[in-house]
Amino acid sequence: MTDPGPSPRTTRPRPMAAPLRIAALLVAPLTLAGLLLPGAARAQEIVPGDASARGPADAAPRVEWGLVIHGGAGTIRRSEMTEERAAEYRAKLTEALNAGHAVLAEGGSAVDAVVAAITIMEDSPLFNAGKGAVFTSSGTNELDASIMNGADLNAGAVAGVKRVKNPILLARAVMENSSHVMFARDGAEAFAEEQGLELVPEEYFHTESRMRSLERAKERAAAERSSALPTESEKLGTVGAVARDRSGDLAAGTSTGGITNKLWGRVGDAPIIGAGTYASNESCGVSATGQGEFFIRNVVAYDICARVKYTGATVTEATRAVILGRLVEQEVLGGVVVMGADGEIAMEFNTEGMYRGWIGPDGAVTVKMYADE
Amino acid sequence: MTDPGPSPRTTRPRPMAAPLRIAALLVAPLTLAGLLLPGAARAQEIVPGDASARGPADAAPRVEWGLVIHGGAGTIRRSEMTEERAAEYRAKLTEALNAGHAVLAEGGSAVDAVVAAITIMEDSPLFNAGKGAVFTSSGTNELDASIMNGADLNAGAVAGVKRVKNPILLARAVMENSSHVMFARDGAEAFAEEQGLELVPEEYFHTESRMRSLERAKERAAAERSSALPTESEKLGTVGAVARDRSGDLAAGTSTGGITNKLWGRVGDAPIIGAGTYASNESCGVSATGQGEFFIRNVVAYDICARVKYTGATVTEATRAVILGRLVEQEVLGGVVVMGADGEIAMEFNTEGMYRGWIGPDGAVTVKMYADE
Repeated sequence: MTDPGPSPRTTRPRPMAAPLRIAALLVAPLTLAGLLLPGAARAQEIVPGDASARGPADAAPRVEWGLVIHGGAGTIRRSEMTEERAAEYRAKLTEALNAGHAVLAEGGSAVDAVVAAITIMEDSPLFNAGKGAVFTSSGTNELDASIMNGADLNAGAVAGVKRVKNPILLARAVMENSSHVMFARDGAEAFAEEQGLELVPEEYFHTESRMRSLERAKERAAAERSSALPTESEKLGTVGAVARDRSGDLAAGTSTGGITNKLWGRVGDAPIIGAGTYASNESCGVSATGQGEFFIRNVVAYDICARVKYTGATVTEATRAVILGRLVEQEVLGGVVVMGADGEIAMEFNTEGMYRGWIGPDGAVTVKMYADE
Repeated sequence: MTDPGPSPRTTRPRPMAAPLRIAALLVAPLTLAGLLLPGAARAQEIVPGDASARGPADAAPRVEWGLVIHGGAGTIRRSEMTEERAAEYRAKLTEALNAGHAVLAEGGSAVDAVVAAITIMEDSPLFNAGKGAVFTSSGTNELDASIMNGADLNAGAVAGVKRVKNPILLARAVMENSSHVMFARDGAEAFAEEQGLELVPEEYFHTESRMRSLERAKERAAAERSSALPTESEKLGTVGAVARDRSGDLAAGTSTGGITNKLWGRVGDAPIIGAGTYASNESCGVSATGQGEFFIRNVVAYDICARVKYTGATVTEATRAVILGRLVEQEVLGGVVVMGADGEIAMEFNTEGMYRGWIGPDGAVTVKMYADE
């Protein structure tokens, strides 16, 4: 159940990997020293890990079909994680991977697999999405999600819904049952009602641990007289999945509760096609987790695909150039999971850890949390 | 006042222009025949013009500093335009260009120039933005806007505001006075109130001509039993500006009322950083107008910048590859105005016309409407 760690079935040379890691390290000292992040965010509890340490461990696997998922990037330390808690995370990630695998094994679509995996993570209080969504500064839970089909570039996204149990299902309904790509807030909820999606009372999302997070964030903000941006690990919690099905079609999806203590009405990168989610059969599929505002400004998901498409970089090269290169230069924290048109899988992040895993045709599950795994 | 038509002060060879036009024509027959557009949209009143006809007339100018604007792309035909009406459009575009020029001439920033030009177009009922915003299917006016500073990649966006007189000013306030990039609907309006921006009663946006457009769109939708997507020129009406200031900094902004008869709560491409708006000093600034859903799916604004950055294409080459190549292949209608890091200006569209113009240091105004100008 926990990290059987199979050898990748297929690997390929990664000629750019070393130079990129060096480039990242050249600019890393500023970040590693814990200096101010851009904007109002600070590197306090979330300190970028030494990304170079995990290079070979994540040596790019490549699969005929399968999926890769994440459950958020941030401060994930062995010293602060009980065995029991770690086992819960690994079990839930494994469950999500197996659900997506079951869909694909039966010949289901990449879109179906992405939805199957994300729904399971949304229903768990462990992750900042669906049930476990964090609170806004006003004490509400406002959820965002998006999904994209790499076969036809169709996409759906919703921002700021409060009563939709599984925002990824609503994003899919927008993609498939409307002529629009994105709906926000009350407009998105009205569409959810029309579509007959499961609605829950707002209290469904009120978990005690997330409320404590909000209280701590507010105390910190007051003490620092800084902006409302939080500094703890929940802020980067987001779930996502990218799948490639037996037909070779890619799909990607992302779902989140946003960041603790965000101003209500704020839209992060998760529902922004191009920033938090992108999929195109001609390049790759991406789901992101990180400091959303900076992921929007850098169009992170599409930028990875554009590098693959226009520069001939492999998925791993393009992903590292963005996450360990460009974002580190800007002192922006986060990570992505990526799957290429050729089935290459990348799981890259510049934080201390990222809940992540992948599965291929043989059904062997790889699940990781820390940077040095 | 109307199109003094100065020769571009600086031009450069455009080696890819001819092949690109040929490529566009190779795929054009499907579109030109008026077949179904992707999704539920149809090419009825909006028929793509023969983009190749206007090639040399838009030969890429390049300016030390200045700005380029658009007032929407769509069906703009001499046969359906009175002299008086045409003069009104040219006068308002000229006023917007002169306002931006005045800012830049005094050493103002690209962001200031973009805001100055867009505010004037928002205050005019001629364009589908601000005062002239179209109606949703529910008879409301919901406005979107975004702005991006190419110098630091900071950005601000708002979606679905109903009482903010100038949404571009609110987008700027989000960019400069919040740690977030995007706010939606009631959350955006609450932020507008906090910021002390000018609010107007919803009736301010109720113009008779836009209400007639909604009625016609509903009649057509009922007659065709098709989706709510409209087919008339207003659907692509959006305003935007891209500026380069004396320091060489780029900025881009876009503002719109969306599309007539859209479902309320729909978010189009205008407030999506990467789709409707993008600016980076290392590549270019872009403001788009078109079938928003497909501009989101193709990440149009950032894709143009990515091609400049990763393939070495000039601004005109990259812009034509996207607007006359990729979008025409997908039978997607619209256009963009672009300004490169080197001051190169592109105004490209695949529709019958686009309200557009540019101005450089000498203050000579170029304003155009039709495809063959």
